[in-house]
Amino acid sequence: MTKEYTLCYDGGKRDEDLILPINSSLSITLHQDQLKTTTTIACSRNFQQDRIWLNGKEEDISNPRLQSCLQEIRRFSRKRRNSGDSTSDVSSVSHKVHICSVNNFPTAAGLASSASGYACLVYTLSQLFGVESEQLSAVARQGSGSACRSLYGGFVQWKLGEQLDGKDSLAEQVESESFWPELRILILVVSAEQKSVGSTSGMHTSVETSQLLKYRADVVVPSRMEKMIRVIRERDFPAFGELTMKDSNQFHAICLDTYPPIFYLNNMSHRIISLVHHYNQYYGETRVAYTFDAGPNAVIYTLQDHLPEFVQVVRHFFPPEVNGEEFVKGLPVCSADLSEELKRDINMEPTPKGIRYIISTKAGPGPCVVKDPNHHLLGADGLPKKSAISD
Amino acid sequence: MTKEYTLCYDGGKRDEDLILPINSSLSITLHQDQLKTTTTIACSRNFQQDRIWLNGKEEDISNPRLQSCLQEIRRFSRKRRNSGDSTSDVSSVSHKVHICSVNNFPTAAGLASSASGYACLVYTLSQLFGVESEQLSAVARQGSGSACRSLYGGFVQWKLGEQLDGKDSLAEQVESESFWPELRILILVVSAEQKSVGSTSGMHTSVETSQLLKYRADVVVPSRMEKMIRVIRERDFPAFGELTMKDSNQFHAICLDTYPPIFYLNNMSHRIISLVHHYNQYYGETRVAYTFDAGPNAVIYTLQDHLPEFVQVVRHFFPPEVNGEEFVKGLPVCSADLSEELKRDINMEPTPKGIRYIISTKAGPGPCVVKDPNHHLLGADGLPKKSAISD
Repeated sequence: MTKEYTLCYDGGKRDEDLILPINSSLSITLHQDQLKTTTTIACSRNFQQDRIWLNGKEEDISNPRLQSCLQEIRRFSRKRRNSGDSTSDVSSVSHKVHICSVNNFPTAAGLASSASGYACLVYTLSQLFGVESEQLSAVARQGSGSACRSLYGGFVQWKLGEQLDGKDSLAEQVESESFWPELRILILVVSAEQKSVGSTSGMHTSVETSQLLKYRADVVVPSRMEKMIRVIRERDFPAFGELTMKDSNQFHAICLDTYPPIFYLNNMSHRIISLVHHYNQYYGETRVAYTFDAGPNAVIYTLQDHLPEFVQVVRHFFPPEVNGEEFVKGLPVCSADLSEELKRDINMEPTPKGIRYIISTKAGPGPCVVKDPNHHLLGADGLPKKSAISD
Repeated sequence: MTKEYTLCYDGGKRDEDLILPINSSLSITLHQDQLKTTTTIACSRNFQQDRIWLNGKEEDISNPRLQSCLQEIRRFSRKRRNSGDSTSDVSSVSHKVHICSVNNFPTAAGLASSASGYACLVYTLSQLFGVESEQLSAVARQGSGSACRSLYGGFVQWKLGEQLDGKDSLAEQVESESFWPELRILILVVSAEQKSVGSTSGMHTSVETSQLLKYRADVVVPSRMEKMIRVIRERDFPAFGELTMKDSNQFHAICLDTYPPIFYLNNMSHRIISLVHHYNQYYGETRVAYTFDAGPNAVIYTLQDHLPEFVQVVRHFFPPEVNGEEFVKGLPVCSADLSEELKRDINMEPTPKGIRYIISTKAGPGPCVVKDPNHHLLGADGLPKKSAISD
């Protein structure tokens, strides 16, 4: 189960209880080799209560969104069994569950993990209780809105839907992860010292206070969604990149138009944005694009051919610590030379240690079942294995 | 002639040549005792050419906006003389002029001085050439759009106007500088190290690229302008403060929605914004408001009664250098004690030296003639006096 990154942003919820979005949105599911959530769930008549461990630490199971997911899955499972529709050997829905979940990416880095986490939880629950996959979108949405997108690999849209009860507000794959193999993704994790000022409110405040949001949701996003799907299908990188950047900027503009305002971008994000525009300007075309979620870390899209040079540009303008941790993690990146002309033309003051490290990745598949019991996180006693705690 | 600060922002120009705004705007003219431009203009048959000195340095007189102002004033002057309407002893319009202008506020601090500068230039030219004041708004607009507002004291609106030629796009005083004497103004000048990333484009790009700007100009601003004028007339600080903050945020949201995006706010601006909201939250009412122009420095509005405590709050959360320059310049501010509860409740990490200094001021009058020849900037030879260069 993988982390996804947004292209066309969802900007708040039209219904906070049902977690219905105010506009459609589109994202790319990242590859599990670099960013994934692993979840093991066991159920047993011997378990006294539902319990959950996240990244090795037991958490409160009474979290309302967690409870919604559990209830919804159990409801679907009962319904299916009552209708005699169940063919698989489903576990007893009345049994208590133990849930153990870990991310292989640093949660401290501000790479929001709730989409990945809830999607993985719901998928794993569905395997356990034998619930059909068409229903999972709605259940995952109860946990974290954007989790519904993470149930699919590749390019995924979360449709606004028209029904009041949200039954048609579902995720849908636009193209699979193998559709555009040249497309590469970098996550630039900015330094902890560069962290943003905490926001005093969330996106739900935007729906109430931003006058611009309604216009964005009603007028701007519908046409952008259509265009985004078209340029992905045409593998038109310059158009895809420009639209991605514009929509990221507009999402953050709405955050700023919220009252009190929400800031996710910081000085380092501004510098990355500026670097990307200068780089593209040098070549007279959009070779690299950025997008930012609810934090200062940048997600960069580029084509394989331009990847080595751009990584070298990042290394030049954000020189890493000499004896620090590995700067580029994940998929290998070839080395490249920078021309003096390019460095001079970008004309930015280097910011040493402004970026902590880069995760190099690409589009990846949706959730899958881990068959090897050695990789399961719960032991025979239904408690987390040592490895799941130390991970 | 004083610097003004914006309440309802103008967000780009509908006509770049005529410098017509895309929406109406409103500002407060700041007091000349703290922030002013002084300009002396002489004309003589002996001068070989038009010349200009700004802050002691001769500048290129061929600047197109400067030329527009000179041509317009000369045109009005000739027209008036030809119609026999001239009663004053006006200088010969055909003579060349020498212009000398200085600001008493640091230009390096990013306190945009063009509004103040052009308003002062046009006012002084009008005195020299005997042009009527009703025509100055249009001439000042040719120099720097917002300069037309700086021709008046107190609370000033710049009306959008409806005519294509812009003849009705003029500034107009809403209330004089003495209307709301309890209203106090602080300019928080942030450290140079905290400077923003330079923008690669200006507000004119917003008109072309921001999809949100049109909605703001057509729908949001007209109703906000009406409300702003009403709450100023009612001296309703909480409503005035909230509207000011919301409009500042929306202006910067439009900058972010521009492509490529424009960033004027930096981490320090974000911290100041956060501090103001936390402070107001503590009291459960809007006691302090911020607004930001095209830079990271904050302009703070508050009532006299709350001024000492808020300055102390700023001093606590942005501790100045111990032996540095004076922290609060301008109008004196009484000292105040902070309760431990307030400090705890605001709950922000202090940022030492984040703010360089504060300029304490209030609303001030429009331009006036400096009578004392000792304060004139040009000597009998028509060249800048030594004092005008070293100032």
